[in-house]
Amino acid sequence: MKKEAVVGIDIGGTSVKYAIVDLSADILAEGTIPTENLDQLNVFLDELTETLGNAIREVSSVADVKGIGVGAPCGNYKNGCIEYAVNLKWTQGQQVPLVKLLQERFAMPVAVTNDANAAALGEMIYGGAKGMKDFILITLGTGLGSGLVTNGELLYGHDGFAGEIGHVLAKENGRCCACGRRGCLETYVSAPGIVRTVFELLAEYNDPSELRNYSFLQLTSEIIYHAATRGDFIAREAFRLAGELLGVKLADAVAHTSPEAIFLFGGLAKAGELLLKPVRESFNRSLLKNYQGKIPVELSSLPESNVAVLGTSALIWTEIGRRQ
Amino acid sequence: MKKEAVVGIDIGGTSVKYAIVDLSADILAEGTIPTENLDQLNVFLDELTETLGNAIREVSSVADVKGIGVGAPCGNYKNGCIEYAVNLKWTQGQQVPLVKLLQERFAMPVAVTNDANAAALGEMIYGGAKGMKDFILITLGTGLGSGLVTNGELLYGHDGFAGEIGHVLAKENGRCCACGRRGCLETYVSAPGIVRTVFELLAEYNDPSELRNYSFLQLTSEIIYHAATRGDFIAREAFRLAGELLGVKLADAVAHTSPEAIFLFGGLAKAGELLLKPVRESFNRSLLKNYQGKIPVELSSLPESNVAVLGTSALIWTEIGRRQ
Repeated sequence: MKKEAVVGIDIGGTSVKYAIVDLSADILAEGTIPTENLDQLNVFLDELTETLGNAIREVSSVADVKGIGVGAPCGNYKNGCIEYAVNLKWTQGQQVPLVKLLQERFAMPVAVTNDANAAALGEMIYGGAKGMKDFILITLGTGLGSGLVTNGELLYGHDGFAGEIGHVLAKENGRCCACGRRGCLETYVSAPGIVRTVFELLAEYNDPSELRNYSFLQLTSEIIYHAATRGDFIAREAFRLAGELLGVKLADAVAHTSPEAIFLFGGLAKAGELLLKPVRESFNRSLLKNYQGKIPVELSSLPESNVAVLGTSALIWTEIGRRQ
Repeated sequence: MKKEAVVGIDIGGTSVKYAIVDLSADILAEGTIPTENLDQLNVFLDELTETLGNAIREVSSVADVKGIGVGAPCGNYKNGCIEYAVNLKWTQGQQVPLVKLLQERFAMPVAVTNDANAAALGEMIYGGAKGMKDFILITLGTGLGSGLVTNGELLYGHDGFAGEIGHVLAKENGRCCACGRRGCLETYVSAPGIVRTVFELLAEYNDPSELRNYSFLQLTSEIIYHAATRGDFIAREAFRLAGELLGVKLADAVAHTSPEAIFLFGGLAKAGELLLKPVRESFNRSLLKNYQGKIPVELSSLPESNVAVLGTSALIWTEIGRRQ
C-alpha cells in the first residue's frame, strides 16, 4: 500500500525550497526553485506548478500526496493570502490569494502561514519544543519574526496577524522601520538592526575597530560576528545592546502569553553566546518575579535549511487531520 | 425536574460576592460576605462554607448546584491556588490551595482564576465580546489586570500566569511597583497610578488646580475625575497621559495576540471619554498598519457588580462541560 505524504514549501526572497515529506518526517524528494528573476505572478506560479508537479509524479509510485503547506513572508493563515510582501518581487507588493491559486492547480488542500509560524511548527514537532504546549519562537534574520504557540496551537488571532513581536515599540521616536513607523524592535534586533547599531557605536566611540573599514552597504551581521569573536569592542557592544533589548521585550512577551520556553532561530542567532548571554541576563532581570528563572531561552536545535519545509509540512498534516 | 445551577464567587480585598446562577444566567440567590476582619484562613473558610452551604440548601428545591467557580486576585487556574495575594489578609500572603480546600468542603467541581480572567469570561458570555473568539479585557482598578481570550478560550499559558499586561515595562527605571520592579505599566495606568501622575504634574506645573488641596493619601482617582469634568488642567492632563501610555501598550498587546476588540473595565474606566479618547488616539497611531482602524477599544457594557460572579459561573459551567 502506498503511504501518505505532503508537500512543505518555504518561500523566500530569492528562492523557493520544497520537500515531499511522509508522516515520519522522512523526506521523499526535495529541491530549490530560484525565483529572484521572477517578477510576474503567473510566471512564478507556472514555475512552481511545473516543478512541484514533476516532484509529485516522481514519488507517486510510493506515496500519495495529500496536501501542500506553505510558509511565506506575510503569509496569512486565516485568509490564505500573502499580504503585501515587499520582499517577494513576483507579488509586486500586492495581496496574492496563494491558497486559492495553488488549490486550482493541484486540486488538494493547501494552507499558508508566515515563515516564523512555520519555524515554530517545525520546532514544536521536530525540535526543542517537542511536547511543549506554550512557547515562543523568535526568528532573527532580515527582520524579527515570531511564532507564538499557546495551548498546543499556533496563535493566529482574529485576522491571522498575531505574533508580530518585531513591531512592538522598542524606542519612542526611534529608528525608521520598513513598516512606516519608528522605533520597532526589529530595527534594533535583526541582521540589519545590528548593522545600524554598529554605525551608531562607531560614531559614539573612539575605540579602534576593524568595522571602521566597511561602508554601510558592505557591512553585514556576519562580519560583525567575526569581529566580535576576535574581541572587537564595537562588535561585541553591538551584540550586547541587541541582546539586552531583546531580553527586555521577551519579558514583556512572557507577560502576555506565559510560555514554557523561548527559542531563537535564524541568521543572527548563530552568534550563539554573544547574543544569548545578554539576552538571558536582561530577560531574567526584567521578568515578573513569578516567572524568574523558570523560562529557558535557547537557540533552536534545528538546521535552518530544513525547519521551514518540515514546519509547513506539519501545518498541512494538521490541516488534513493527521497527527504526526 | 430541577434545573442545574452553579455558584460564582468573586473574592475581593474586603468582601466576597457570590451568586447561584442557572444556565440562562438567571441569578437564583446572591449575597456578600464581609471579609475585612478575617485574617485567618480557617475562619475565612468556615464563614464561606456556612454562608454558601445555606444558600445552596435554600435553592435546593428548584436547582441542583453542580460546581463552584471562583475569581480572586492571583488566582491560578492551572494549579488551583491563590498565589501570594498580599491584598487578601486571610491568605497571610501565602499560597492557598483554594480549589482543593473547597472541593473537600462541598464535594463538587471547583475552578479558580484571577479577577481579570473572570471579567473577560463575563464579557465574552454576557457583554460586548459576545461571539468574539479573540479579544482583550483590561481591568483598571487598584492595579491593571488583563484577560486575554484567543481562539475562544482564556489564555492561561504554561503556568497559568498569562495576561499580566499590568507588568510590561512602561518606563525604564520608572516608578516603583508593588511587584518589586520599576516602571511597570500599572504604576502609571491604574487608580493609584493616576494619583501618582497628578503629584508629578502638580510639581511640574504652576497652573492652579483644586487638586493642590489634597494630600497623597487623601487623593483618589474619583476626585481627579470630578476635577477633570470641571476642566481642571492638571486632572485632565493626568487622564491624557494615562490614556496615551495605555494606547501605546495596547498596540504592543495587539502585536502579540491580534484581537478583534479591546474592552476596558473597572473603576478607572468609569472616566469614559476622558480616558478613552487619548487611549484610542495613541492606540491607532501606534498600531502596525495591518491593524490600524480595525480594532475598537470600548468600555465594558457590563455592570461591575455582576460581571465577576457571572464570569466565574461561566468558568465552572465550561469546566463541567455545559455550554451556555
